[in-house]
Amino acid sequence: MKISIGVSNRHVHLTREAVDVLFGLNFELEEKNKLNQPGQFASNSLVTIKTEKSEITNVRVLGPLREYNQVEISKTDAYKLGINPPVRDSGDLADSCGITIIGPNGSLDLSEGCIIATRHIHLLPSQAKLYGLEGKKTVNIKLDGEKGGIITNVHLKVSDEAFFELHLDTDDANAHLIKNGDIGEIL
Amino acid sequence: MKISIGVSNRHVHLTREAVDVLFGLNFELEEKNKLNQPGQFASNSLVTIKTEKSEITNVRVLGPLREYNQVEISKTDAYKLGINPPVRDSGDLADSCGITIIGPNGSLDLSEGCIIATRHIHLLPSQAKLYGLEGKKTVNIKLDGEKGGIITNVHLKVSDEAFFELHLDTDDANAHLIKNGDIGEIL
Repeated sequence: MKISIGVSNRHVHLTREAVDVLFGLNFELEEKNKLNQPGQFASNSLVTIKTEKSEITNVRVLGPLREYNQVEISKTDAYKLGINPPVRDSGDLADSCGITIIGPNGSLDLSEGCIIATRHIHLLPSQAKLYGLEGKKTVNIKLDGEKGGIITNVHLKVSDEAFFELHLDTDDANAHLIKNGDIGEIL
Repeated sequence: MKISIGVSNRHVHLTREAVDVLFGLNFELEEKNKLNQPGQFASNSLVTIKTEKSEITNVRVLGPLREYNQVEISKTDAYKLGINPPVRDSGDLADSCGITIIGPNGSLDLSEGCIIATRHIHLLPSQAKLYGLEGKKTVNIKLDGEKGGIITNVHLKVSDEAFFELHLDTDDANAHLIKNGDIGEIL
Protein backbone atom coordinates (compact mmCIF):
# COMPACT_ATOMS: atom_id res chain seq x y z
CA MET A 1 0.00 0.00 0.00
CA LYS A 2 1.50 3.32 -1.12
CA ILE A 3 1.17 6.39 1.08
CA SER A 4 2.19 10.01 0.57
CA ILE A 5 4.55 11.58 3.06
CA GLY A 6 4.26 14.90 4.84
CA VAL A 7 7.47 16.23 6.42
CA SER A 8 6.89 18.10 9.70
CA ASN A 9 9.40 20.78 10.54
CA ARG A 10 9.62 21.86 14.20
CA HIS A 11 6.39 23.58 15.28
CA VAL A 12 4.24 24.63 18.21
CA HIS A 13 0.61 24.07 19.23
CA LEU A 14 -0.85 26.58 21.70
CA THR A 15 -3.84 27.08 23.98
CA ARG A 16 -6.02 30.21 24.02
CA GLU A 17 -4.29 31.31 27.22
CA ALA A 18 -0.80 30.82 25.74
CA VAL A 19 -1.66 32.88 22.64
CA ASP A 20 -2.96 35.65 24.93
CA VAL A 21 0.40 35.71 26.74
CA LEU A 22 2.66 35.35 23.69
CA PHE A 23 0.81 37.50 21.13
CA GLY A 24 -1.64 39.61 23.14
CA LEU A 25 -5.14 39.23 24.54
CA ASN A 26 -7.63 37.74 22.07
CA PHE A 27 -5.00 37.60 19.30
CA GLU A 28 -6.27 35.38 16.48
CA LEU A 29 -3.93 33.06 14.57
CA GLU A 30 -4.08 33.89 10.86
CA GLU A 31 -3.98 31.09 8.31
CA LYS A 32 -0.82 31.17 6.18
CA ASN A 33 -1.64 27.91 4.41
CA LYS A 34 -3.83 24.90 4.98
CA LEU A 35 -2.26 21.60 6.04
CA ASN A 36 -3.48 18.32 4.57
CA GLN A 37 -5.18 17.24 7.81
CA PRO A 38 -8.76 18.66 7.80
CA GLY A 39 -9.05 21.98 9.66
CA GLN A 40 -5.34 22.23 10.48
CA PHE A 41 -3.27 25.16 9.23
CA ALA A 42 0.15 26.81 9.42
CA SER A 43 -0.32 30.29 10.87
CA ASN A 44 1.63 33.45 10.13
CA SER A 45 2.81 33.53 13.76
CA LEU A 46 6.33 32.58 14.79
CA VAL A 47 7.90 32.08 18.22
CA THR A 48 11.35 31.43 19.65
CA ILE A 49 11.89 28.29 21.70
CA LYS A 50 14.58 28.58 24.33
CA THR A 51 16.44 26.46 26.87
CA GLU A 52 19.35 27.18 29.20
CA LYS A 53 21.77 26.09 26.47
CA SER A 54 20.42 27.65 23.30
CA GLU A 55 17.43 28.84 21.33
CA ILE A 56 15.76 28.33 17.95
CA THR A 57 14.00 31.26 16.30
CA ASN A 58 11.18 31.36 13.73
CA VAL A 59 9.31 28.29 14.96
CA ARG A 60 5.87 28.25 13.38
CA VAL A 61 2.64 28.12 15.37
CA LEU A 62 0.07 25.73 13.91
CA GLY A 63 -3.66 26.23 14.26
CA PRO A 64 -6.30 25.86 15.39
CA LEU A 65 -5.85 26.35 19.14
CA ARG A 66 -5.56 23.21 21.27
CA GLU A 67 -6.27 22.22 24.85
CA TYR A 68 -2.54 21.88 25.54
CA ASN A 69 0.75 23.57 24.65
CA GLN A 70 3.11 21.35 22.69
CA VAL A 71 6.49 21.94 21.08
CA GLU A 72 7.51 19.31 18.49
CA ILE A 73 11.18 19.21 17.57
CA SER A 74 13.67 16.80 16.00
CA LYS A 75 16.55 15.05 17.76
CA THR A 76 18.88 17.38 15.86
CA ASP A 77 17.06 20.36 17.41
CA ALA A 78 17.20 18.62 20.80
CA TYR A 79 21.01 18.42 20.66
CA LYS A 80 21.18 22.11 19.78
CA LEU A 81 18.89 22.94 22.72
CA GLY A 82 20.65 20.54 25.10
CA ILE A 83 17.51 18.61 26.05
CA ASN A 84 16.37 15.02 25.71
CA PRO A 85 12.66 14.98 24.83
CA PRO A 86 10.77 11.67 24.73
CA VAL A 87 9.24 10.27 21.53
CA ARG A 88 5.50 10.73 22.00
CA ASP A 89 2.09 10.96 20.35
CA SER A 90 0.49 14.41 20.34
CA GLY A 91 -1.03 15.32 23.70
CA ASP A 92 0.89 12.64 25.65
CA LEU A 93 3.00 15.17 27.52
CA ALA A 94 3.46 13.80 31.07
CA ASP A 95 7.14 14.07 32.03
CA SER A 96 8.09 15.48 28.64
CA CYS A 97 10.68 18.27 28.49
CA GLY A 98 10.26 21.76 29.84
CA ILE A 99 10.96 24.64 27.47
CA THR A 100 10.44 28.39 27.19
CA ILE A 101 8.35 29.87 24.36
CA ILE A 102 8.94 33.54 23.50
CA GLY A 103 6.48 35.59 21.47
CA PRO A 104 6.35 39.27 20.54
CA ASN A 105 4.13 40.06 23.54
CA GLY A 106 5.54 37.84 26.30
CA SER A 107 7.03 34.49 27.19
CA LEU A 108 5.86 31.25 28.70
CA ASP A 109 7.90 28.78 30.79
CA LEU A 110 6.46 25.32 30.21
CA SER A 111 7.39 22.69 32.79
CA GLU A 112 6.53 20.07 30.17
CA GLY A 113 5.34 20.01 26.55
CA CYS A 114 8.40 19.47 24.38
CA ILE A 115 8.48 16.13 22.52
CA ILE A 116 9.83 14.38 19.47
CA ALA A 117 6.71 13.25 17.61
CA THR A 118 6.25 9.57 16.87
CA ARG A 119 6.35 8.59 13.24
CA HIS A 120 2.63 8.33 12.45
CA ILE A 121 -0.03 7.80 9.81
CA HIS A 122 -3.38 9.62 9.79
CA LEU A 123 -6.27 7.56 8.46
CA LEU A 124 -10.04 7.17 8.58
CA PRO A 125 -11.70 4.12 10.21
CA SER A 126 -12.93 3.16 6.72
CA GLN A 127 -9.37 3.26 5.39
CA ALA A 128 -8.09 1.14 8.29
CA LYS A 129 -10.71 -1.44 7.34
CA LEU A 130 -10.11 -1.24 3.59
CA TYR A 131 -6.33 -1.59 3.95
CA GLY A 132 -6.43 -4.43 6.50
CA LEU A 133 -5.01 -2.26 9.28
CA GLU A 134 -7.93 -2.51 11.73
CA GLY A 135 -6.73 -3.18 15.27
CA LYS A 136 -3.07 -2.60 14.41
CA LYS A 137 -1.21 -0.01 16.47
CA THR A 138 1.95 0.30 14.38
CA VAL A 139 3.24 -0.58 10.93
CA ASN A 140 6.59 -0.59 9.12
CA ILE A 141 7.18 1.63 6.11
CA LYS A 142 9.55 1.13 3.20
CA LEU A 143 11.28 4.24 1.91
CA ASP A 144 13.03 4.03 -1.47
CA GLY A 145 16.05 5.88 -2.76
CA GLU A 146 19.80 6.17 -2.40
CA LYS A 147 19.50 6.37 1.40
CA GLY A 148 16.36 4.28 1.68
CA GLY A 149 15.33 1.73 4.25
CA ILE A 150 12.49 0.54 6.41
CA ILE A 151 11.27 2.55 9.38
CA THR A 152 9.54 0.71 12.20
CA ASN A 153 7.15 1.68 15.00
CA VAL A 154 5.03 3.97 12.80
CA HIS A 155 1.86 4.67 14.80
CA LEU A 156 -1.59 4.49 13.22
CA LYS A 157 -3.82 7.41 14.21
CA VAL A 158 -7.34 6.51 13.20
CA SER A 159 -9.82 9.38 13.40
CA ASP A 160 -13.04 10.55 11.73
CA GLU A 161 -11.23 13.59 10.35
CA ALA A 162 -8.11 12.40 8.62
CA PHE A 163 -6.26 12.71 5.35
CA PHE A 164 -4.37 9.50 4.59
CA GLU A 165 -0.74 10.54 5.04
CA LEU A 166 2.50 9.51 6.77
CA HIS A 167 4.08 12.21 8.92
CA LEU A 168 7.85 12.18 9.43
CA ASP A 169 10.03 14.68 11.23
CA THR A 170 12.93 16.38 9.46
CA ASP A 171 15.50 13.92 10.86
CA ASP A 172 13.68 10.92 9.39
CA ALA A 173 13.06 12.82 6.15
CA ASN A 174 16.61 14.11 5.73
CA ALA A 175 18.23 10.80 6.72
CA HIS A 176 16.29 9.10 3.93
CA LEU A 177 16.48 12.04 1.48
CA ILE A 178 12.69 12.25 1.58
CA LYS A 179 10.83 15.46 0.79
CA ASN A 180 7.26 16.54 1.23
CA GLY A 181 4.96 14.65 -1.13
CA ASP A 182 7.26 11.69 -1.67
CA ILE A 183 5.75 8.20 -1.48
CA GLY A 184 6.37 5.40 1.02
CA GLU A 185 5.01 1.87 1.18
CA ILE A 186 3.18 0.29 4.11
CA LEU A 187 4.56 -3.23 4.59
CA MET B 1 26.61 -9.95 12.95
CA LYS B 2 26.76 -7.04 15.39
CA ILE B 3 28.74 -3.90 14.55
CA SER B 4 29.54 -0.77 16.53
CA ILE B 5 28.48 2.56 15.11
CA GLY B 6 30.51 5.73 14.74
CA VAL B 7 28.52 8.91 14.13
CA SER B 8 30.25 11.39 11.79
CA ASN B 9 29.44 15.02 12.30
CA ARG B 10 30.13 17.40 9.41
CA HIS B 11 33.88 17.64 8.74
CA VAL B 12 36.56 18.57 6.26
CA HIS B 13 39.58 16.78 4.71
CA LEU B 14 42.31 19.02 3.28
CA THR B 15 45.40 18.88 1.06
CA ARG B 16 48.79 20.30 2.03
CA GLU B 17 48.14 23.25 -0.28
CA ALA B 18 44.73 23.95 1.24
CA VAL B 19 46.14 23.97 4.78
CA ASP B 20 48.82 26.40 3.62
CA VAL B 21 46.12 28.78 2.34
CA LEU B 22 43.66 28.38 5.23
CA PHE B 23 46.03 28.20 8.20
CA GLY B 24 49.38 29.49 6.91
CA LEU B 25 52.42 28.06 5.12
CA ASN B 26 53.61 24.72 6.56
CA PHE B 27 50.96 24.78 9.32
CA GLU B 28 50.71 21.33 10.90
CA LEU B 29 47.35 19.88 12.00
CA GLU B 30 47.51 19.03 15.72
CA GLU B 31 45.81 15.89 16.97
CA LYS B 32 42.88 16.62 19.30
CA ASN B 33 41.85 12.98 19.56
CA LYS B 34 42.38 9.78 17.66
CA LEU B 35 39.54 8.34 15.56
CA ASN B 36 38.88 4.61 15.50
CA GLN B 37 40.19 4.19 11.95
CA PRO B 38 43.97 3.61 12.14
CA GLY B 39 46.02 6.79 11.69
CA GLN B 40 42.99 9.08 11.43
CA PHE B 41 42.44 11.91 13.90
CA ALA B 42 40.28 14.92 14.73
CA SER B 43 42.50 18.00 14.69
CA ASN B 44 42.24 21.13 16.80
CA SER B 45 41.62 23.16 13.64
CA LEU B 46 38.20 24.51 12.68
CA VAL B 47 36.95 26.20 9.52
CA THR B 48 33.78 27.89 8.32
CA ILE B 49 32.01 26.46 5.27
CA LYS B 50 30.07 29.00 3.26
CA THR B 51 27.70 29.20 0.31
CA GLU B 52 25.74 32.06 -1.24
CA LYS B 53 22.84 31.32 1.09
CA SER B 54 24.43 30.67 4.45
CA GLU B 55 27.41 29.42 6.41
CA ILE B 56 28.27 26.90 9.14
CA THR B 57 31.04 27.73 11.59
CA ASN B 58 33.28 25.46 13.69
CA VAL B 59 33.56 22.62 11.19
CA ARG B 60 36.38 20.33 12.26
CA VAL B 61 39.34 19.45 10.04
CA LEU B 62 40.28 15.77 10.19
CA GLY B 63 43.81 14.51 9.69
CA PRO B 64 46.07 13.38 8.22
CA LEU B 65 46.29 15.45 5.02
CA ARG B 66 44.75 13.94 1.88
CA GLU B 67 45.28 14.21 -1.86
CA TYR B 68 41.92 16.00 -2.25
CA ASN B 69 39.78 18.57 -0.42
CA GLN B 70 36.45 17.19 0.74
CA VAL B 71 33.62 18.64 2.81
CA GLU B 72 31.21 16.06 4.26
CA ILE B 73 27.85 17.37 5.46
CA SER B 74 24.37 16.05 6.23
CA LYS B 75 21.20 16.74 4.23
CA THR B 76 20.10 18.96 7.14
CA ASP B 77 23.28 21.03 6.67
CA ALA B 78 22.68 21.04 2.92
CA TYR B 79 19.24 22.65 3.36
CA LYS B 80 20.77 25.30 5.61
CA LEU B 81 23.46 25.98 2.99
CA GLY B 82 21.03 25.87 0.08
CA ILE B 83 22.94 23.23 -1.87
CA ASN B 84 22.16 19.71 -3.07
CA PRO B 85 25.29 17.56 -2.67
CA PRO B 86 25.35 14.02 -4.06
CA VAL B 87 25.69 10.93 -1.82
CA ARG B 88 29.23 9.71 -2.49
CA ASP B 89 32.11 7.62 -1.22
CA SER B 90 35.17 9.54 -0.04
CA GLY B 91 37.28 10.84 -2.93
CA ASP B 92 34.52 10.40 -5.54
CA LEU B 93 34.09 14.13 -6.08
CA ALA B 94 33.40 14.65 -9.80
CA ASP B 95 30.42 17.00 -10.19
CA SER B 96 29.91 17.26 -6.43
CA CYS B 97 28.98 20.64 -4.96
CA GLY B 98 31.15 23.71 -4.87
CA ILE B 99 31.67 25.39 -1.52
CA THR B 100 33.90 27.99 0.13
CA ILE B 101 36.12 27.05 3.08
CA ILE B 102 37.28 29.88 5.34
CA GLY B 103 40.21 29.53 7.74
CA PRO B 104 41.98 32.02 10.00
CA ASN B 105 44.61 32.74 7.32
CA GLY B 106 42.60 32.71 4.11
CA SER B 107 39.79 31.15 2.14
CA LEU B 108 39.41 28.63 -0.63
CA ASP B 109 36.67 28.48 -3.28
CA LEU B 110 36.21 24.84 -4.24
CA SER B 111 34.41 24.21 -7.53
CA GLU B 112 33.62 20.71 -6.24
CA GLY B 113 34.27 18.69 -3.07
CA CYS B 114 31.11 18.90 -0.97
CA ILE B 115 29.25 15.58 -0.55
CA ILE B 116 26.92 13.66 1.71
CA ALA B 117 28.92 10.56 2.65
CA THR B 118 27.49 7.14 1.84
CA ARG B 119 26.55 5.01 4.81
CA HIS B 120 29.58 2.72 5.04
CA ILE B 121 31.38 0.00 6.97
CA HIS B 122 35.16 -0.16 7.35
CA LEU B 123 36.56 -3.68 7.47
CA LEU B 124 39.67 -5.75 6.80
CA PRO B 125 39.85 -8.31 3.95
CA SER B 126 40.08 -11.01 6.65
CA GLN B 127 36.90 -9.74 8.28
CA ALA B 128 35.06 -9.67 4.94
CA LYS B 129 36.03 -13.33 4.51
CA LEU B 130 35.21 -14.33 8.09
CA TYR B 131 31.78 -12.67 8.02
CA GLY B 132 30.80 -13.97 4.58
CA LEU B 133 30.86 -10.50 3.02
CA GLU B 134 33.53 -11.13 0.37
CA GLY B 135 32.53 -9.72 -3.01
CA LYS B 136 29.54 -7.86 -1.61
CA LYS B 137 29.35 -4.12 -2.29
CA THR B 138 26.55 -3.18 0.09
CA VAL B 139 24.63 -4.60 3.05
CA ASN B 140 21.52 -3.71 5.04
CA ILE B 141 21.76 -2.83 8.73
CA LYS B 142 19.13 -3.22 11.45
CA LEU B 143 19.00 -0.44 14.01
CA ASP B 144 17.03 -1.09 17.21
CA GLY B 145 15.13 1.31 19.42
CA GLU B 146 12.04 3.46 19.58
CA LYS B 147 12.78 4.95 16.15
CA GLY B 148 14.54 1.91 14.78
CA GLY B 149 14.52 0.42 11.32
CA ILE B 150 16.63 -1.04 8.57
CA ILE B 151 18.96 1.12 6.51
CA THR B 152 19.88 -0.06 3.04
CA ASN B 153 22.71 0.63 0.60
CA VAL B 154 25.43 0.57 3.28
CA HIS B 155 28.74 0.39 1.39
CA LEU B 156 31.50 -2.02 2.40
CA LYS B 157 34.94 -0.39 2.40
CA VAL B 158 37.48 -3.17 2.62
CA SER B 159 41.05 -2.03 3.29
CA ASP B 160 44.23 -3.29 4.91
CA GLU B 161 43.97 -0.59 7.56
CA ALA B 162 40.50 -0.70 9.03
CA PHE B 163 38.69 -0.82 12.34
CA PHE B 164 35.42 -2.76 11.96
CA GLU B 165 32.80 -0.04 12.34
CA LEU B 166 29.66 1.38 10.70
CA HIS B 167 29.81 5.11 9.94
CA LEU B 168 26.56 7.08 9.85
CA ASP B 169 26.05 10.80 9.39
CA THR B 170 24.16 12.83 11.98
CA ASP B 171 20.89 12.66 10.02
CA ASP B 172 20.87 8.87 10.01
CA ALA B 173 21.99 8.79 13.64
CA ASN B 174 19.46 11.35 14.89
CA ALA B 175 16.57 9.91 12.88
CA HIS B 176 17.16 6.55 14.58
CA LEU B 177 18.15 8.02 17.98
CA ILE B 178 21.57 6.41 17.57
CA LYS B 179 24.64 7.75 19.34
CA ASN B 180 28.32 7.05 18.98
CA GLY B 181 29.19 3.54 20.17
CA ASP B 182 25.70 2.08 19.77
CA ILE B 183 25.36 -1.30 18.09
CA GLY B 184 23.73 -2.25 14.79
CA GLU B 185 23.25 -5.61 13.10
CA ILE B 186 24.40 -6.59 9.62
CA LEU B 187 21.55 -8.51 7.95
